[in-house]
Amino acid sequence: MKNDKCTVLNFTEQLGGKWKLPIINAIRKNETLRFGKIHQIVDGISRKVLTEQLKALEYDGLIIRRQYEEIPPRVEYSLTNKSRGLCEVFQAIDKWSRIEDK
Amino acid sequence: MKNDKCTVLNFTEQLGGKWKLPIINAIRKNETLRFGKIHQIVDGISRKVLTEQLKALEYDGLIIRRQYEEIPPRVEYSLTNKSRGLCEVFQAIDKWSRIEDK
Repeated sequence: MKNDKCTVLNFTEQLGGKWKLPIINAIRKNETLRFGKIHQIVDGISRKVLTEQLKALEYDGLIIRRQYEEIPPRVEYSLTNKSRGLCEVFQAIDKWSRIEDK
Repeated sequence: MKNDKCTVLNFTEQLGGKWKLPIINAIRKNETLRFGKIHQIVDGISRKVLTEQLKALEYDGLIIRRQYEEIPPRVEYSLTNKSRGLCEVFQAIDKWSRIEDK
């Protein structure tokens, strides 16, 4: 039981808060996304908070930030193996929401 | 896609943060739990924060608080149908954590 508890706590420490899961979910559904597009999809997030959250997610190995040397420079975000593994968590959340609506 | 996004955002608005999922998970594994026991299981939570989180979870219909008129009074927390439905989310988190460890 000790281990299971730590599992959930470890998850919420990395991914808790309002924004990280919606950001990852937005990228997941589009393979790669630019900042402006994420900002558009994740409803209600400010550019400042989105910038902070993307940095934290990159630091935790949950997203990859790739900068293309074009003019103007293009930056794209994509998932890592670690965050791609969250697919089932999103499916479970989706299922839970549908149960809840009934 | 709009709907799916809202689903995850709706989830994190209710259950985001570090503590709510670990608290629900602790109760889930024990059917009913008293305050002191939750405090003991959820590693690192203060009594003040636990009190706040339990109130918020009760308000959102995610846990039931039952007070027994004994001396001294006994208070027990249990899950609602809504939070019992989170079982698959916990399973998915657990599975994700195990992938991540490899």
